Amino acid sequence: MTDYQDIEKRFRRLGALQEAAGLLQWDTATLMPEGGAGARAEQSATLALVCHEILTDPAIGDLLDGAERQNDLDAWQRANLREMRRSWLHATAVPGDLVEAASRAGSDCEQIWRRARPASDFAMVLPALQRVLDLTREVAAAKAARLGKSPYEALIDRYEPGITTAEIDRLFDDLAAALPGLIDQVLARQAAVPAPLEPPGPFPIEKQREIATRLMARLGFDFEHGRLDTSLHPFCGGTPDDVRITTRYDEGNFRGALMGVLHETGHALYERGLPAAWRRQPVGEARGMAMHESQSLLIEMQACRSREFTHYLAPLLRDAFGAGGPAWSADNLYRLNTRVARSFIRVDADEVTYPAHVILRYRLERALVAGDLALADVPGAWNAGMKELIGAVPPDDRMGCLQDIHWYDGLFGYFPTYTLGAMIAAQLFDAAKRADAAILPGIATGDFAPLLAWLRENVHGKGSFLTRGEIIEAATGSKLDADIYRRHLETRYLGAA
Amino acid sequence: MTDYQDIEKRFRRLGALQEAAGLLQWDTATLMPEGGAGARAEQSATLALVCHEILTDPAIGDLLDGAERQNDLDAWQRANLREMRRSWLHATAVPGDLVEAASRAGSDCEQIWRRARPASDFAMVLPALQRVLDLTREVAAAKAARLGKSPYEALIDRYEPGITTAEIDRLFDDLAAALPGLIDQVLARQAAVPAPLEPPGPFPIEKQREIATRLMARLGFDFEHGRLDTSLHPFCGGTPDDVRITTRYDEGNFRGALMGVLHETGHALYERGLPAAWRRQPVGEARGMAMHESQSLLIEMQACRSREFTHYLAPLLRDAFGAGGPAWSADNLYRLNTRVARSFIRVDADEVTYPAHVILRYRLERALVAGDLALADVPGAWNAGMKELIGAVPPDDRMGCLQDIHWYDGLFGYFPTYTLGAMIAAQLFDAAKRADAAILPGIATGDFAPLLAWLRENVHGKGSFLTRGEIIEAATGSKLDADIYRRHLETRYLGAA
Repeated sequence: MTDYQDIEKRFRRLGALQEAAGLLQWDTATLMPEGGAGARAEQSATLALVCHEILTDPAIGDLLDGAERQNDLDAWQRANLREMRRSWLHATAVPGDLVEAASRAGSDCEQIWRRARPASDFAMVLPALQRVLDLTREVAAAKAARLGKSPYEALIDRYEPGITTAEIDRLFDDLAAALPGLIDQVLARQAAVPAPLEPPGPFPIEKQREIATRLMARLGFDFEHGRLDTSLHPFCGGTPDDVRITTRYDEGNFRGALMGVLHETGHALYERGLPAAWRRQPVGEARGMAMHESQSLLIEMQACRSREFTHYLAPLLRDAFGAGGPAWSADNLYRLNTRVARSFIRVDADEVTYPAHVILRYRLERALVAGDLALADVPGAWNAGMKELIGAVPPDDRMGCLQDIHWYDGLFGYFPTYTLGAMIAAQLFDAAKRADAAILPGIATGDFAPLLAWLRENVHGKGSFLTRGEIIEAATGSKLDADIYRRHLETRYLGAA
Repeated sequence: MTDYQDIEKRFRRLGALQEAAGLLQWDTATLMPEGGAGARAEQSATLALVCHEILTDPAIGDLLDGAERQNDLDAWQRANLREMRRSWLHATAVPGDLVEAASRAGSDCEQIWRRARPASDFAMVLPALQRVLDLTREVAAAKAARLGKSPYEALIDRYEPGITTAEIDRLFDDLAAALPGLIDQVLARQAAVPAPLEPPGPFPIEKQREIATRLMARLGFDFEHGRLDTSLHPFCGGTPDDVRITTRYDEGNFRGALMGVLHETGHALYERGLPAAWRRQPVGEARGMAMHESQSLLIEMQACRSREFTHYLAPLLRDAFGAGGPAWSADNLYRLNTRVARSFIRVDADEVTYPAHVILRYRLERALVAGDLALADVPGAWNAGMKELIGAVPPDDRMGCLQDIHWYDGLFGYFPTYTLGAMIAAQLFDAAKRADAAILPGIATGDFAPLLAWLRENVHGKGSFLTRGEIIEAATGSKLDADIYRRHLETRYLGAA
């Protein structure tokens, strides 16, 4: 057995155990009775520990060195080694007791946050959050030393390999400067015409589910290799051969579940399209969280909120719900799906204000990790940022800095991936439409096969063989360019009606 | 850390991984899309391998020796060590490549059996079954040498620790002698009165599910710690804190799903009642498969097919299905639930002929493992045994020796546990009714709390602290006695109408 074969075998085992852990997580969110939580935590923690031991086995470093010296490897094997080394560096950068302390601090803080948020009481959670931040900064320092990056970059690297704050700033700063004016213009334009009509419910859940299932099939979701279920927070879980997405239904409003399903289907198509020959190997995995988000946003925002798709969707919805009238016209539904507001809550935000929410969080968390912002000053900084970027100050911290679980759970460095994903989505969709003239007419008739074929070829099938930058450049002919995203927003929200 | 603490920690990890593997199995049987099978097999095999490595780690033998020399252990810890040693002996008795070969032979043979059974073609599966038997005999010989038992006993020991063929013969032989006459008498008595009426369907599945759920709750099933789902083959899975039973519904006949749910609920109550302080430790597990089956049969056969319970059940069913008439009388339903026939198929057999099916299989598999019976002679021996014990010869091997998956999947030594369980159930129920006079009146009003309290105290809460024999003797005042079971059958099937 060569060093490469040895290490591939170890990662195959790791991959299978991570898949098992993924199923446990899915089950926890969808079906597990409450009383099973304690045992489930024990199962998940044990699996995580076994995975950690496999990855930090003292033999791994030598095997990586040995395999990297082999001259009989092909390009995919070399890329696999590169991704293995990255995982190994992250896993070995931080002492085990620090990982455990940080994980425990996150769980503890999250529990307190669950009470502090409805009470809008930031002070209640501040001490626990301080502990989370302190430990996060320790983790960041340890990773920074090992990875040769700044502490904040070392944290993002876990989710978005190789990205720098210089690159993020390049992409975000111009957008941040343009957004307030764009939001003002869009709102003024909206105010000049009557508001769209909300279709009257109720919308039976069984019917919503049926429509969702039908659209998933149109998009190319393969039910022989996946499921749709229900959970409090929608997500895409499972494995590439058994992709499980979830949604939640509201009898009074079908649009939330529907757009949520389209979003998660985008994630699912990516997972399902990963290179089958590299299952349970690092090079076979998705290329970072920004690329993953780009796939969900490409389907939800670029393709399915388009005028073209809405013309296909409107009669389908009227038929399914047995409804009619002006609220069900394609034009009205399109205006509903592209309605903009100065929102306080990120997860409910529209396409135009969403990046402002993300940029705010990126700036704050970067300053927190750098030590340039004290936690006690977060509520004030939050509100100031909201005023600057969105032009509205939340009435309380519940609607402000307490709304998202991320920081309270110890997740710093993840927020930028949402808007990076939106930018990548815009650029890929733009390139796809130019590459294949059948894509847009297809979407207008509910035929996503041309779009999916292009994504399979240019994104999904690449796994982690190329870097994010290489995938984007190969697929679109240029580096990631925030202007394409800005132009998409301007065209959709300020272009010809 | 003492040796005991060290080994307990290792088994805690093992227990958590086995729980995770159990959830994967449950998911495979209930929800997994077909296309997920390959990845699931990889996940399960990897978990099994990791568990095997934990159990066969070279350090375990020394740790067991060291812990057994410690004089600071309480009785439960000592019992835990005893069970650890048993698991370890089984895991280390057989070389890894033999385990793998036997497992692969079982999978291969099972695939062929799935085609051979509907075709009633024993010759088709004979070569593959020969390989399974050859490898099973090798495994049995290896275990026999290590455990100091006969080869067949070494196989049963995996499911029913410590039992001997002498004890099984003592229990089975008298019963086998009595059964043909008993069956004749019961059938003659049945023939003397009109046949019971089958309630006319259809029975909507949602309604059946509602009734099942209600009865589970009456029996003490805690839905905060468990679920009811659907699968092709009903089973009880999950973990003590998250017990998951399944059933399958037939719109034309509600009794199969209903009695199946009651049966699996008996298993579930056992799992849920295992000692919480010993979760994920060997001493906290159920005391063998015969004891497990006793808990399902005690609920299904002893309690829920009784006249007392049927009087509670009949009006509940009439209400739920909105039905009435003579087919729905308690007396008619009781006669349906205690109907006896010279059946060919074990899983469909009634309470009286069931043990005959099991005794036949026990005798044949014991002879096969001993080398006293050639596989080619199985069909003939099967039919001769059926004639002797049940008085009816199956028309073909599909209804005969091809019906059960067990041998074809490599499972030898499991069959006796079914009838041992039935005997234990009769003896425990007999003792319970004598110990608490409130138990039977409770069952007559759908109140299972007194029965459950007795089972929790005398069986469930003991885990594997005592041996099977000790549990039975402590709970009932005597050793396992086949006569109590025989008397139960005579009383129910030949007693006052």
